Amino acid sequence: MKIHALAKIVILALIGFLLMPGLILAKEKPNVVFMLADNLGYGDLGVYGGGETRGAPTPRIDKLANEGIQFTQFLVESGCTPSRAALMTGRYSIRSGLSLVIVPGTPNTLAGKEVTLGELFKSKGYSTAYFGKWHVGTEKQSLPQNQGFDQWYGIPNTTDETFYVPGSKTAKAPLPDGFTKPAIVSAVKGGDAEFVKEYTYETRRTIDFEIADKSIEYIKNTAAKKKPFFLFVSWTRPHEPNKPSKKFAGKSRIGDYGDGVMELDYNTGRVLDAIDDARIRKNTIVVWVSDNGPTRTTAWPDGGFAGPYRGELGSSLEGSIRTAGMMRWPGKIKPGASNEMFSIMDFFPTFASIIGAPVPSDRPIDGVDQSDFLLGEQKNSNREHLLTFIGDRLHSVRWRQFRVYMVDQGGGSGTTAEFQYGLGGSYKILDYPQIFNIEHDPREEYNVSAHHGWVMPHAMKHIMEYKTSLKKHPNPPPPNLANH
Amino acid sequence: MKIHALAKIVILALIGFLLMPGLILAKEKPNVVFMLADNLGYGDLGVYGGGETRGAPTPRIDKLANEGIQFTQFLVESGCTPSRAALMTGRYSIRSGLSLVIVPGTPNTLAGKEVTLGELFKSKGYSTAYFGKWHVGTEKQSLPQNQGFDQWYGIPNTTDETFYVPGSKTAKAPLPDGFTKPAIVSAVKGGDAEFVKEYTYETRRTIDFEIADKSIEYIKNTAAKKKPFFLFVSWTRPHEPNKPSKKFAGKSRIGDYGDGVMELDYNTGRVLDAIDDARIRKNTIVVWVSDNGPTRTTAWPDGGFAGPYRGELGSSLEGSIRTAGMMRWPGKIKPGASNEMFSIMDFFPTFASIIGAPVPSDRPIDGVDQSDFLLGEQKNSNREHLLTFIGDRLHSVRWRQFRVYMVDQGGGSGTTAEFQYGLGGSYKILDYPQIFNIEHDPREEYNVSAHHGWVMPHAMKHIMEYKTSLKKHPNPPPPNLANH
Repeated sequence: MKIHALAKIVILALIGFLLMPGLILAKEKPNVVFMLADNLGYGDLGVYGGGETRGAPTPRIDKLANEGIQFTQFLVESGCTPSRAALMTGRYSIRSGLSLVIVPGTPNTLAGKEVTLGELFKSKGYSTAYFGKWHVGTEKQSLPQNQGFDQWYGIPNTTDETFYVPGSKTAKAPLPDGFTKPAIVSAVKGGDAEFVKEYTYETRRTIDFEIADKSIEYIKNTAAKKKPFFLFVSWTRPHEPNKPSKKFAGKSRIGDYGDGVMELDYNTGRVLDAIDDARIRKNTIVVWVSDNGPTRTTAWPDGGFAGPYRGELGSSLEGSIRTAGMMRWPGKIKPGASNEMFSIMDFFPTFASIIGAPVPSDRPIDGVDQSDFLLGEQKNSNREHLLTFIGDRLHSVRWRQFRVYMVDQGGGSGTTAEFQYGLGGSYKILDYPQIFNIEHDPREEYNVSAHHGWVMPHAMKHIMEYKTSLKKHPNPPPPNLANH
Repeated sequence: MKIHALAKIVILALIGFLLMPGLILAKEKPNVVFMLADNLGYGDLGVYGGGETRGAPTPRIDKLANEGIQFTQFLVESGCTPSRAALMTGRYSIRSGLSLVIVPGTPNTLAGKEVTLGELFKSKGYSTAYFGKWHVGTEKQSLPQNQGFDQWYGIPNTTDETFYVPGSKTAKAPLPDGFTKPAIVSAVKGGDAEFVKEYTYETRRTIDFEIADKSIEYIKNTAAKKKPFFLFVSWTRPHEPNKPSKKFAGKSRIGDYGDGVMELDYNTGRVLDAIDDARIRKNTIVVWVSDNGPTRTTAWPDGGFAGPYRGELGSSLEGSIRTAGMMRWPGKIKPGASNEMFSIMDFFPTFASIIGAPVPSDRPIDGVDQSDFLLGEQKNSNREHLLTFIGDRLHSVRWRQFRVYMVDQGGGSGTTAEFQYGLGGSYKILDYPQIFNIEHDPREEYNVSAHHGWVMPHAMKHIMEYKTSLKKHPNPPPPNLANH
């Protein structure tokens, strides 16, 4: 009897011991609040040399940067759709046929078979929500509620969707089925996008307040349920047109754009406060990144600034591909600026690793797992190169501090016609690759290829790895190109 | 008797009371260590977006910036001689005839009647020393030992004085009397400059180590004497030619220039450590500033970078006139970045105020007393404009966030021929002033004069104040111009 009783205790203790790691893991599964700014440039925020010196202070985002890792080499793709596709799938956008921006008259859309960040978190039992701009396709299978998100409130395409009216009357506007005008919509998992209100110059003024409101409510309610969540906050600021909100009109010293940046800072702060109010700061990873470089010449005066770098959205110059990015995880990620390379594609495998979700093995994943680097297990990041495609064309390769160009970047303001519409003919393939040392020459004024030919084999290695991957996994044709 | 005894006590107490403020002031008189970098650009240091991202980390200077006020609008003149003359005298360099850089073949020299920072501190009983590059004239009355400094060790002209040999054989090289070759010299108050060794490509490699060594020794010895001191540390880094020292050759990722910046950071750290070792950190004001903008195109690849701003040394574009600057005074100056305007001329009246020295009243002083701002007595600085002269010509006016141009700035790489030799004819006076909004448009690409004509009266007010001052105090002819 006594021995039996003891055995029972031992067995119970053992079971308890075996269950513990699982319980601890379940308890420790972090929440993720992922905030994405729209067309904010490298030089716009205070911690990147902008903010107050640009007449538009950003104290809340600056503070967030100081509380976490501030990436000084956060690398993206050359425009909204490509960069968001890369973020959602962990793959170069060219692999999902989304390497050109979705604009009226083009049918690009995210395929149902793509596995998104939403689905990744969903596979581990997370509550998921998406508030804000989508812009990776409007066909039913492409929308957030069918790509892993429990709910969605926002705009299907882009911030300047407001421009589509009335110009898009005769074009096949990329709108969800049943819609004839740009709209703010809501949806729940598996359902249709429901019309909430028209998306106009007027509703553009307040949409980010709505995105913040929804996010705050979601954080409050989901934290109360003690269920881990993945919240994607997809701001529309400071993408043109920055029709100002009443609260921020005239608040900056540089007009609408600065007002938009200050509003973005304010609403970011509101979401951060909601995390604190719910007492989940310690177990909540906050990511705050821009999707791509700024529009400068094309949107002036309502555009951003790439700081010391040359180029803007639409090109593959450094000012287009390097933008602002930061990540906070109290007690896990050591605060400070880091010049290690981090790509927007890296979030996919990194979060997979952090939450223990499997990465799809039936397709190339170009993102790399950066969790060991972020958590201080290793000094350097796992990335030292990045390819940049625009349309069907490899434009350049970053390898360490060098950028190698295969395609002439012209005046630096982007190869917009190709970029947006895939019309072709707007780029010139270089006779001989150009090489720029970004560290020495941030504005890419001195081609050093004559003395740095040794860089080429390193760039070629990565190009060939990519080309080899195409044999088994050919890219779909970029739809814009296919349709012209 | 008793009453007499009491009266005595009262009288003694009164005398003590009257003496006390004097004693306290004497005790509190702060030391000042003023470090001046040579041709470092706004974008070179880590805290200004450079450092590690430029392949040349600057951890010691970054830390200093974070311990004090980091100026994001530290404004200077367009080259070494003008900016140093403005610093030393608290006046626009055009008032002392030093508005062009001293180069071989030109006789510019600081007049004996000018009152310098050295003399200001001397007037209050400070021990004073100057180590490093001078470059405001080589005539006897112009040299440090005759301008308020107890001792001097360094080079009379500029870092690239090494280039003068043998090119200057036939030119009237600006060297102290008795010298035929560029030399490192030493001097004591009132004496002659004594030859120490030739200043060559080889001694250029190590001169900043010598400047640091002298500074460290001086701090140690003078602190031990409990006498307040003013130490001027005039680095030669990172002015071209950055022939690297053995210790730093190849240390950066961007060649000689980066190696020079890293060495500068290292030697700055050594001087800062000496302050701590002497236990005088709390009562020592540390100023660390660059003298002007970087040489970029003219010195490539051995030149600096103006970060987000357009222009370089020699022009009046923002990248030439705005550079790095910081100031530490523990417990007195609140740490943090400040976007308030601060001119290199402001140190003169500011230090006068801090140490209680009189500012000369027989001449215009263009610097403004910034002590209340620095000590937190007022929120804003006392400066909202700055004129920029090159040679005999007003090129531009900064007023608040605007820069108003009277002279075309061409490609932005400086009006070098005029700038250095005053030959004239290399600038084009604009038919109508151009106005750029530096905050909105740091690279000065969009002339907004059509919409911002209202800025002109504000700029004109300051121009007219200056012009009015000339009636009573006409400028001397810029010697370069006078001699051609």
